[in-house]
Parts: sequence; structure tokens; C-alpha cells
Amino acid sequence: MDAKGISQAVIGRLPRYYRYLGDLKEAGIERISSNALSIKMNVTASQIRQDLNNFGGFGQQGYGYNVNYLRSEIGKILGLNDNHNIVVIGAGNLGQAFAKYSSFERSGFFVKGIFDNNPKYIGESIRGVSIMMMDELESFLEENHIDIAALTIPKEALKEVVDVLVKNNVKSFLNFVLTDLDLPEDIVVENVHLSDSLMKLSYNMKSKKEDASTGE
Amino acid sequence: MDAKGISQAVIGRLPRYYRYLGDLKEAGIERISSNALSIKMNVTASQIRQDLNNFGGFGQQGYGYNVNYLRSEIGKILGLNDNHNIVVIGAGNLGQAFAKYSSFERSGFFVKGIFDNNPKYIGESIRGVSIMMMDELESFLEENHIDIAALTIPKEALKEVVDVLVKNNVKSFLNFVLTDLDLPEDIVVENVHLSDSLMKLSYNMKSKKEDASTGE
Repeated sequence: MDAKGISQAVIGRLPRYYRYLGDLKEAGIERISSNALSIKMNVTASQIRQDLNNFGGFGQQGYGYNVNYLRSEIGKILGLNDNHNIVVIGAGNLGQAFAKYSSFERSGFFVKGIFDNNPKYIGESIRGVSIMMMDELESFLEENHIDIAALTIPKEALKEVVDVLVKNNVKSFLNFVLTDLDLPEDIVVENVHLSDSLMKLSYNMKSKKEDASTGE
Repeated sequence: MDAKGISQAVIGRLPRYYRYLGDLKEAGIERISSNALSIKMNVTASQIRQDLNNFGGFGQQGYGYNVNYLRSEIGKILGLNDNHNIVVIGAGNLGQAFAKYSSFERSGFFVKGIFDNNPKYIGESIRGVSIMMMDELESFLEENHIDIAALTIPKEALKEVVDVLVKNNVKSFLNFVLTDLDLPEDIVVENVHLSDSLMKLSYNMKSKKEDASTGE
């Protein structure tokens, strides 16, 4: 729950609505009923209405949603009208993959720097963004306003880097490292733990199999 | 919800319990109270009890949890006593990063093949696993029992590959591609959509900032 009492489950569905409404907009669709939206998105119409009602609701009964308006309102709720600047910590495969995602920029997320401690990367850049050495991080953060750090380094190296980031006012972390960070109250973290995702998949696979065999 | 009425939120917390209990086990800790577990994991003790009660509960009042037993029971619930074989579709940075995660193996997830359509990868391998060409996928699937496909290829190429995978009995997908897959009922999907994670981070950052400024 955040301070407004909105659950992380609701918040987690907003990006999908936003993304989907973007596809509709690109396809030239201006208006959509909550039913049509729900079928396309594979959630119930009442779920969509409930989710949006947390923020005031944006449709008119029997009239549906204005695609562009709804998308832009959800974008505002998500804070996407401000640009966000990112540093990627770790220039290994995962850090490079992350830095190459050009689609982030459409939503206002910009990779501004990539940091590693391996000198083999000196002089290299990814999509025009330089790979710098870790000892340059602090001065970089002093000179650039960075909101988000994507963490893709080994567990052992994490604490020291996170301390530098927090000290220099980086307030949010996209954490790929398989460890739960112990951070001050005002910091937000989104964990991307791939082995957790595999285990969830394993559970759901097993659960489907059991359903099938009991004929449920 | 799965067929047993257990929510995806509960299921999503199980891997974290499992992982955390593994750390305790490695540290030689044999028994832990639900309070101590809850403080370490930053969830309430009642949440832990509620989550575990979905599966029968595994503690004794006033006696705490046996670390090794609880971990092994959660492992069974997650289906980790069976090994799972994975193919990685796409040998770009993300596919390579995924194939390099050796920690998956500790939970019984094994990468068995990596596929791409770029001939520059012919003859290459990652941690002993060959990168094969996409036109070899079907015969590979006929000869190997694969449970899970990790999808790391461009959106446009996805449908064709997924059809081959489904046809050859791959029942679950870890999907990194920013599109929602339209799949038969018996297939399970876990989406890892990094731009959705960034948007969630943006929301939570904004929400924290607003709380701070209203003094809540």
C-alpha cells in the first residue's frame, strides 16, 4: 500500500493499461468501451473500473473511455510527465541489454550513464552513452540529476555502490541483484529477480498440471 | 488466483521466503520465530502466517519454524523438487545475461539450449550450452524435454517462435518481450516487462515525494 491506500497490485496494473492504451492510440482508436478494453486486456471490466476509480475514474457510463485522455491521465498518475534520468550500474550483459532498450525513452526514461569497474570498457559507449569507471560515479552524480539507478552488479559489490548512490540523492532503484536491499524509508525499490520469476512459473505450471489431472 | 484460490500475490512471495530460508540455512540457523523472520524480511508476522496457512501452515505456536523443513516444504509447493529445462530464445545481451545466471541451477532450472537467427553466433556457446540457429529449434524440442522458454527476441519475431514452442509441448514462458501473449489456456506466462517496472518505480517515487511534502 502507498500512503493513499492504493495497493501495489493496482499500481502494478497501471503500466499495462498505459501501454495498451498507447497501442490503441497508435492504431488510431479514439474511444473504447470498458468491456472491449477488458476483453483485449484479459481482465474483467469491473476490475478496470475499480482500478481506475482509485484515481477518480475516467469513463462515462455507456460512453466508454476516451483513449487519448485516459492514457494521458494514467501517464500523469504514473509520473511520466516528468522525465527520469537513469544510471546503469554494471556494464555486463544485463546492464548492456538494459541500456539498449530504446523503448524506455518513449515513456520519459533516459539512460545518462553506465558504470563498471572493468577497465576493458574504458572508451566504450552504448547508444551514445559512455561507459565510465566506478570511481567516476560520485562526481557524475554531483554534476547530473539522476533519479533512478538500475543495479546489475554482483551482490558483493552492491552495498558500497548503493551507499554512494543514496548519499548523492538517487531515490529509486531497479534492482536485478538477488538480494533484498536495506534502505532508508524515502527510497523506493523495484526488484527484478529472475529466479523468483522462474519459481513462480514453476508453481503455476505445477498448479495447472494438477488441475488438469483432477479435471477441475 | 489459481484453482486452489491462492492469489498470485501470495505465490509471488513464496520464492522470497524460499530464498531467504536458504540464506538462513547456509548461515547454519536451524530455527527461527515468525517474528524474527518477519523483521528480517520486512513483512508482518501475520502476513507470513497467513501466506503459509494457505498451504497448511508449518510452525508451532511459540516454537517458531524449522528452517530446513520449511524451506523444503516451500520448495515442494513451488515444484522445485522436479528439475526444469529451459531454452533461451534470443542470444542478444538479455538472452546471454539470462543464460549466464548460474544461480538458477541451485533451484533446479537448467538452460539446455540457446537459439538465435543471427549466423554470427554459429559455433558459440555460453557456459557449455550451444547457441543454435532458430531453424534447429523444432528438432531440438522433439529430442529434448523442455518445460520453459525464456523469450528475449523482438516483438515481430515472437508469434512464429511461440507457435513452434507451443506445438512442441513447451508449457511455460518467461516473457521479456513487451507484448502480452495470446496463448492457450494450459500455458503459463510470467512477464518481465522492464518498462512496466520503471513506471511502477516512477509512481512510487512520486507518491513518496507527495507524502513527504504533505507531511503524511
